[in-house]
Amino acid sequence: MDADVPLLIPEINSDHLKVLDRQKSGRGFSTGYIVTNPNCSTIIMALALAPLHEKFGIEAVIATTLQAVSGAGYPGVPSLDVVDNVLPFIDGEEPKMESETRKILGRLGTNSFENAPFAVSAQCHRVNVADGHMVAVRVKLAKRTSIEEVREALTSYTSVPQQLKLHTAPKHPILVRDEKDRPQPRMDRDAGGGMSVTVGRLFPDSVFDYRFVVLGHNTVRGAAGAAILNLELLQARGLLHGKTARENTAPVEARVR
Amino acid sequence: MDADVPLLIPEINSDHLKVLDRQKSGRGFSTGYIVTNPNCSTIIMALALAPLHEKFGIEAVIATTLQAVSGAGYPGVPSLDVVDNVLPFIDGEEPKMESETRKILGRLGTNSFENAPFAVSAQCHRVNVADGHMVAVRVKLAKRTSIEEVREALTSYTSVPQQLKLHTAPKHPILVRDEKDRPQPRMDRDAGGGMSVTVGRLFPDSVFDYRFVVLGHNTVRGAAGAAILNLELLQARGLLHGKTARENTAPVEARVR
Amino acid sequence: MDADVPLLIPEINSDHLKVLDRQKSGRGFSTGYIVTNPNCSTIIMALALAPLHEKFGIEAVIATTLQAVSGAGYPGVPSLDVVDNVLPFIDGEEPKMESETRKILGRLGTNSFENAPFAVSAQCHRVNVADGHMVAVRVKLAKRTSIEEVREALTSYTSVPQQLKLHTAPKHPILVRDEKDRPQPRMDRDAGGGMSVTVGRLFPDSVFDYRFVVLGHNTVRGAAGAAILNLELLQARGLLHGKTARENTAPVEARVR
Amino acid sequence: MDADVPLLIPEINSDHLKVLDRQKSGRGFSTGYIVTNPNCSTIIMALALAPLHEKFGIEAVIATTLQAVSGAGYPGVPSLDVVDNVLPFIDGEEPKMESETRKILGRLGTNSFENAPFAVSAQCHRVNVADGHMVAVRVKLAKRTSIEEVREALTSYTSVPQQLKLHTAPKHPILVRDEKDRPQPRMDRDAGGGMSVTVGRLFPDSVFDYRFVVLGHNTVRGAAGAAILNLELLQARGLLHGKTARENTAPVEARVR
Repeated sequence: MDADVPLLIPEINSDHLKVLDRQKSGRGFSTGYIVTNPNCSTIIMALALAPLHEKFGIEAVIATTLQAVSGAGYPGVPSLDVVDNVLPFIDGEEPKMESETRKILGRLGTNSFENAPFAVSAQCHRVNVADGHMVAVRVKLAKRTSIEEVREALTSYTSVPQQLKLHTAPKHPILVRDEKDRPQPRMDRDAGGGMSVTVGRLFPDSVFDYRFVVLGHNTVRGAAGAAILNLELLQARGLLHGKTARENTAPVEARVR
Repeated sequence: MDADVPLLIPEINSDHLKVLDRQKSGRGFSTGYIVTNPNCSTIIMALALAPLHEKFGIEAVIATTLQAVSGAGYPGVPSLDVVDNVLPFIDGEEPKMESETRKILGRLGTNSFENAPFAVSAQCHRVNVADGHMVAVRVKLAKRTSIEEVREALTSYTSVPQQLKLHTAPKHPILVRDEKDRPQPRMDRDAGGGMSVTVGRLFPDSVFDYRFVVLGHNTVRGAAGAAILNLELLQARGLLHGKTARENTAPVEARVR
Repeated sequence: MDADVPLLIPEINSDHLKVLDRQKSGRGFSTGYIVTNPNCSTIIMALALAPLHEKFGIEAVIATTLQAVSGAGYPGVPSLDVVDNVLPFIDGEEPKMESETRKILGRLGTNSFENAPFAVSAQCHRVNVADGHMVAVRVKLAKRTSIEEVREALTSYTSVPQQLKLHTAPKHPILVRDEKDRPQPRMDRDAGGGMSVTVGRLFPDSVFDYRFVVLGHNTVRGAAGAAILNLELLQARGLLHGKTARENTAPVEARVR
Repeated sequence: MDADVPLLIPEINSDHLKVLDRQKSGRGFSTGYIVTNPNCSTIIMALALAPLHEKFGIEAVIATTLQAVSGAGYPGVPSLDVVDNVLPFIDGEEPKMESETRKILGRLGTNSFENAPFAVSAQCHRVNVADGHMVAVRVKLAKRTSIEEVREALTSYTSVPQQLKLHTAPKHPILVRDEKDRPQPRMDRDAGGGMSVTVGRLFPDSVFDYRFVVLGHNTVRGAAGAAILNLELLQARGLLHGKTARENTAPVEARVR
């Protein structure tokens, strides 16, 4: 969350890499720099929010998670916490989802990141699932939008990794399913090689504008796959291979969209 | 949901029984009448909302459930739907929670029930738990209220069944736990003999006013125990034992609070 | 497993307490002595084997366990080991079941314990169950015995704790169920306050003589309850209250059956 | 189990196809014939037993299963039967494993199948696992065999499908793992594309000669994949493509090994 470190999701905020010039000079790094993965639940939800925020503007988000045990690593979650049980607490997860989402969907100003101008509320739960984080989302939009527009914005979403044909980039970052009982962790977590998120249960909401459920593979899109996609983006941008930013022919700013 | 049938939760709306006079004359019942249990998730959530609505007024509720498989009876939920999985769909559950909650917390006017004047949004999920429904709730209140007042309203809540010392009535309909990781289904579902609900994770919310998690035993407080408590209330009110309302010395209205 | 320490199951081997005189003198204990609980799976299986060994003689036992996660304590078993999984390994469990069973069902000779004269084979598995160890057993008997005799030996079994009416002793140490799908951990682990074991699926076996499944509550009969019952037996025998064995009016030998 | 129908596992008993000539004439089939898949647990166990029976002779088998819920199809097993539970009953499973194993590993005599000359005892359990049947096996061998010989027989096992390079045939029908905690359903069920079985926990047994655990994917090797491999074998044998046996240039007997 440092002001000079991008929380990178290549589809969403590759332009945040521009902060690296400032990071390197500010920290006196001659080689290397810091780019981080967001929290796994944040990545999965942010992917579904990105096209909505881009096209319609988001005014508020209420997110409730049902997260897999692999998110805590190994040995991680004691089995007694999830056998015939739900654990309504994941250390640090709720504040992370609330703050990281706003940074990721925010914009990089001249001197600092500006958070996206909406509040996020997160309640996080651990459930008896091996892999696959599910997030039940309500979203309030800045402008009047039909459900067809919302659906279209989600299904048609592609971005930098798809344009650059990065090796690990899924063809469709967001899949939308219309069956009444999808997405489900065991059925949908491996969509797009684990790099797509799946949205379902998209409906008008009785309090906010829309509600939906989004699911993603927490150890692929939410962790290892995210790191690899970050690397592939950095490589495509000419930011790897031991070169410092200065040794590249152009400043970082010119190399990101 | 018929306009002359009370959706009874004895702690909350015993005064709704007054509709029985109208029900019996309207339906031409000489003996007997219809009183129904609400949906199990609705009961559990409504108990936690009741004191907040009574004291502070509720303006909106956003509820996300994690429900046990016993709620669907036997054979009920196929195991493949919950083993290493979450099912983001329970037939009819979301509209029931949205409409029933407003009727239960509403008031009985001269001619019909008037829904409580707030919207409810419900997203419902089935998880790999035998017993115990959990509801993650955000609530917007009509007046500025401190978290201490919210907590106090919940913990101090008692009502008609406690005053009447009904056999099945829990001493405390609502328990509040301050541990960071409670309530949990396996640990808290049997609180108050399965008739208390347990609230935890009570915090200010970044979008609404407050958030909390409430858990109750779906087959006790949410089903069989609810029916028994209803019967005990009806008996205490002199509405059982084959007497018609007219055979009682007072109209129903006089016999409920 | 020390040669002067009883592995006590009050129903089975209360006479093993006689070794305490030798233990105390051998170890130079002026007060106090060592009595231990067996392994949890061992206790549950040994209870079912005890009447069979007593009445018909056992020649061989093949046991395969399906054990609950609470047996490993907290944090204990990582959830990733049991969510959608079985762990075919519990550290030290197989040799414990094989050796302890023979000691418990053996007899105390003048100078040492003599193992029961049969081999035990144990394969142990951890499964996604909170409480309740299940053991699938095949048993070879020393003499020709009908299934009615086996059933009768199990159901009629009572012993010292029942005769002494020890507070924690279940009325029936062994319950036999004839339904085709019992015992089950969630349904039967609390039988007899968690202190009874439940036998089911009793059939002639195609390789050995009989097969059955026995289930018990691993943290009650298999652990805490076992320790309490041991204490109650020691108290009833006059072996508690700070008295040394010598301060009692009779040697240990005279105070155990 | 009909006397003229092969229970086919291509690695084990492709020679049983010879019975088809007799089947077709006996049943008056002009085209088509009946070949069946064995029970899923039987297939998985039989694969591990085949090389042992072939090389050392088997005298007795004691098998205890821990089976996944997908084995019962959908809706199949009610979730209440496996959430925090084990179901010690699968309808028809125990007799199937006991009889089918002997037919599969038996030989086709001139007039009928001759069962393999050993007894099989099976106890079957349903556990909270999505896919992957585990079988805990004790085996008594006809001749003195070292554990190295047993291990080598398992790991080196290949047969007709591997020689014919059938598309679905796994390179190694049996994998042996030496880690103390393998095989596990979630980790090992997909070995060999779900068509290999994995053996682990191979040890000398205190009652029989050896014990081990074998795991396979019940819906791949135990069902759909088994049927496909059967078809591939039939095709390779020239027994598909609408030809009757008589239309082929050779009797079935000449076309199977």
